[in-house]
Amino acid sequence: MSEKNQRIVVIGGSAAGPKAAAKARRIDPHAEVVIFQKDADLSMASCGYPYYVGGYFDDRNMLLSTPTGVTRDPQFYLNAKDIDARTLTEVMEIDRDAHRITFRNLLTDEPGVVEYDKLVIATGAVPRMPSVPGTDLEGITTLQSMKDADFLRTVRDEGLIKKAVVIGGGLIGIETCEALELAGIEITVIELLPQLLTFLDWELAKLVENHVRTKRANVITGNGIAAFLGEDGKLTGVKLVNGTELPCELAVVAIGVVPNVTLAREAGLKIGQTGGIEVNEYMQTSDPDIYAVGDCIEVTNRITGKKVLAPYGDLANLQGRVAGENAASDNVVTFPGTIQTGICKVFDFSAGATGLSETNAKRLGYDDIITVINASPDKPGFMEGLLVVTKMVADRKTGRVLGAQCVGPGNVAKQIAQWAMAIQGGLTVEDLVNSDLPYAPPFSLAIDHFIATAHIIQNKMKGRMKGISSVEVMQKIDAHESPYFLDVRGPDEFEEMRLGIGETLIPLGALRKRLNELPQDKEHEIICYCKISLRGYEAALVLEANGWKNVKVMEGGIMAWPYPREK
Amino acid sequence: MSEKNQRIVVIGGSAAGPKAAAKARRIDPHAEVVIFQKDADLSMASCGYPYYVGGYFDDRNMLLSTPTGVTRDPQFYLNAKDIDARTLTEVMEIDRDAHRITFRNLLTDEPGVVEYDKLVIATGAVPRMPSVPGTDLEGITTLQSMKDADFLRTVRDEGLIKKAVVIGGGLIGIETCEALELAGIEITVIELLPQLLTFLDWELAKLVENHVRTKRANVITGNGIAAFLGEDGKLTGVKLVNGTELPCELAVVAIGVVPNVTLAREAGLKIGQTGGIEVNEYMQTSDPDIYAVGDCIEVTNRITGKKVLAPYGDLANLQGRVAGENAASDNVVTFPGTIQTGICKVFDFSAGATGLSETNAKRLGYDDIITVINASPDKPGFMEGLLVVTKMVADRKTGRVLGAQCVGPGNVAKQIAQWAMAIQGGLTVEDLVNSDLPYAPPFSLAIDHFIATAHIIQNKMKGRMKGISSVEVMQKIDAHESPYFLDVRGPDEFEEMRLGIGETLIPLGALRKRLNELPQDKEHEIICYCKISLRGYEAALVLEANGWKNVKVMEGGIMAWPYPREK
Repeated sequence: MSEKNQRIVVIGGSAAGPKAAAKARRIDPHAEVVIFQKDADLSMASCGYPYYVGGYFDDRNMLLSTPTGVTRDPQFYLNAKDIDARTLTEVMEIDRDAHRITFRNLLTDEPGVVEYDKLVIATGAVPRMPSVPGTDLEGITTLQSMKDADFLRTVRDEGLIKKAVVIGGGLIGIETCEALELAGIEITVIELLPQLLTFLDWELAKLVENHVRTKRANVITGNGIAAFLGEDGKLTGVKLVNGTELPCELAVVAIGVVPNVTLAREAGLKIGQTGGIEVNEYMQTSDPDIYAVGDCIEVTNRITGKKVLAPYGDLANLQGRVAGENAASDNVVTFPGTIQTGICKVFDFSAGATGLSETNAKRLGYDDIITVINASPDKPGFMEGLLVVTKMVADRKTGRVLGAQCVGPGNVAKQIAQWAMAIQGGLTVEDLVNSDLPYAPPFSLAIDHFIATAHIIQNKMKGRMKGISSVEVMQKIDAHESPYFLDVRGPDEFEEMRLGIGETLIPLGALRKRLNELPQDKEHEIICYCKISLRGYEAALVLEANGWKNVKVMEGGIMAWPYPREK
Repeated sequence: MSEKNQRIVVIGGSAAGPKAAAKARRIDPHAEVVIFQKDADLSMASCGYPYYVGGYFDDRNMLLSTPTGVTRDPQFYLNAKDIDARTLTEVMEIDRDAHRITFRNLLTDEPGVVEYDKLVIATGAVPRMPSVPGTDLEGITTLQSMKDADFLRTVRDEGLIKKAVVIGGGLIGIETCEALELAGIEITVIELLPQLLTFLDWELAKLVENHVRTKRANVITGNGIAAFLGEDGKLTGVKLVNGTELPCELAVVAIGVVPNVTLAREAGLKIGQTGGIEVNEYMQTSDPDIYAVGDCIEVTNRITGKKVLAPYGDLANLQGRVAGENAASDNVVTFPGTIQTGICKVFDFSAGATGLSETNAKRLGYDDIITVINASPDKPGFMEGLLVVTKMVADRKTGRVLGAQCVGPGNVAKQIAQWAMAIQGGLTVEDLVNSDLPYAPPFSLAIDHFIATAHIIQNKMKGRMKGISSVEVMQKIDAHESPYFLDVRGPDEFEEMRLGIGETLIPLGALRKRLNELPQDKEHEIICYCKISLRGYEAALVLEANGWKNVKVMEGGIMAWPYPREK
């Protein structure tokens, strides 16, 4: 350590970079801290772009300013934080041996060189583009930068565009879909995979898709883009893999991002198998004087121990805080990784997940898992509770929570937050069944949806309830099996809404007296359900108490049914 | 075990009792399950009474019915659950030797006797009444029963009463205050203690009180009731201990409840020092064939290991589930106790807490705790984030979270739910600083308020930030100490709102250039703050870097200031 103040250089000025710089400054007030930012803007709230485009607010500066309205520009960084932030300045090369970077001012084209003691790479990610003809047509964009946001906001404000497509049904795609629909544009979301939002399992994603379809938005799944079509250099439509052509004047590509590792790779830093920069728990790259944070790195999944890409704004900030401290002071703090918690707003629904989905758990070799689906209001009916549908995944032997996902118009964020904390606490089903959560009617049911979900999976684990998913039910229907479907709701409910899968209606209250109407072969498979399958569960217990041996409850009932209904 | 089906008898039909009965039925489909209920109604959503009174909904039956609108009356219990529920039937005596109870039909006055194999006592709690003259006057009520709710709803609907007092500023008192204010009545809440809502520490309770005062409601603390005053048998006012007389036509008494243990005591069951029935982790009383659940028992505080009274509807349901299973099957499941999580709506605020407050922790002998107050919006400004103010209490040595409380117009319920799960997971500050929570702008800040709170307390624990509470600041002012108060907001903010405690305004951005304006004695105490004290923290770091040795940050800033402001 020399007497000279150390210089900490940060490459990238979006989320993780400025956070690392600010933390480094706080830890070492005498260090020289420099941020190099290629774009004109600094510290953009990029997760807010869809809401700016969608018109939730009109003041663009809110994306760039502190809560009190001060723009986070170089002047702000200098005055408030004593950080030298250089915008429109691109770093061209990292010379590790010489401990210096070469940069270029994008306005003046002037080159420059700066030495560093510690370097933090926060170069983010770049949007993927499909390898199809026509990507250079006017009218094709992503929603990844402030420039993209400005362009799409202008589209909204001008009101000239009538039809648009969104390529990609992930988180950004869905948020963009909502934003453009709010701009009065007819939207089609095109997703190559069989479902939207792959952090959800299919049956929950389908509930979201069904909701999207109730808006001025169409959804095409299992079909990719084959070409962008145009006239005079302008987009006029897209052609899909199956030959369908959709006319449109605007296409937003949101098929994911790839870590921007060009500088790191050229400098010889190790890149992981996922394509992100390899870092240890201190956020340190293969060069001990270089840290990396944000969307350009790979991180450890805390459940599986495997490396994953997790380009989330919240994690970027947390990583920046860790790297900033370590860069300024020696390695003292660690970042434990991610459980891949995410959420998005989808019109009047929210959709969130934390930990592993069933699909992911199986793909990763978890072979003894148990799942459950629970549908219920989030609050009592008299407080206008709204539906939430949760799917929980647990390890069958230990009961440890592996993941949970939740969708619906109700308070999904609170549910996912509870699951995220449960996973981070390493809690099991037995721990959760008696959770002490904040209850009052304006906020939750007396037995919160989260706790009720744990109760149901506990009943399944103890063999008290045999659950069957809607997907398994449909498989039986498709295979021409003939289980006896028993809907145990009331006649009025049946009149209002029903599946139409050959079910028989016997209200729960009448069931004990009408057992003679059921298949008298006690081995016959009977599948009970109601609106959310609480009465369905009670019905199954009645049947089992009366000797039926093969009784199942369709989890989540009609509210979690992802297929078309008769009514 | 005989061949004969067992009979499980439940005394009490509100929350815990019916839950125990339903669970027992599910576990043993052949048992005979009987509920004795003194009241006319069964399974009332009693936590919903204030919202019925306040006009959130008009259909009284919603308090008594399933989500699909079926009234939970004896017919429902018989048909849907095969449970024999007897309303308007009071249990008079428990004969433990003979394993039988004596009851009386309150309509016919007919007595009866029923034998039990297992008994579950769920006799609830009775409201405390002050020992003052005039309690028999017409116009004095509690809000504890359906009858009370009916009475107060009639008050609302008739619109004749202009002035009312609520005696007691606890959870029910505050909820009642809101309900009556919504009914157009001028309210005064009278609380004997120096603050409302004693699950909060004083300074957070004061923020709630300040909010209540912005409504058509007055608050008197530190003053109890001395007498109810009346004419012709009707309430005309109340007289307080300090002599003040308040005219009013209605008084709602909400000074807490005491466990209703008469039957249990007469039967010789052990009663704990708290006044609740003693139970073990199986919910079993001192008689192994008798279980007890709900507001009539005492439970273990999971943090302190001490017995407490925790009359919450959610815990009653969970306890009922445990007792029902154990009564039906032998002791197989346990109830771990409570962390005393609670929440209430207070007009446009919510106020919640989990674990220990600072006051409670100190009273219980925790002598090495650390606390922090954090104020911030719950979401970004561009998504119309609302303020939440959190106080967190942790064990200084281990960093283990002992408790958290949160108030404000923002999403308090999610914050408290997160803290509750963190406490149940035994998590420490170090665990929390990198929590992976569901982030998107419609739901939270990029660094959630919960995580930011952990960051601040971590900074305090590492000695990077010296915090001072608003209460300590006021003590210094009262003691005529003269710290230098430094407000580092902008001039516009200062014009709009300021404390007026002799502070100097130097905006953070200008601070480094204006250090000469500060006390040049580097030992002089300087207290920095801003709106929420994030800039206050940055300012303190600037001063420390420039040699000042006694610099503190006022936690939560102006937003957490509980005293009157100049502006």
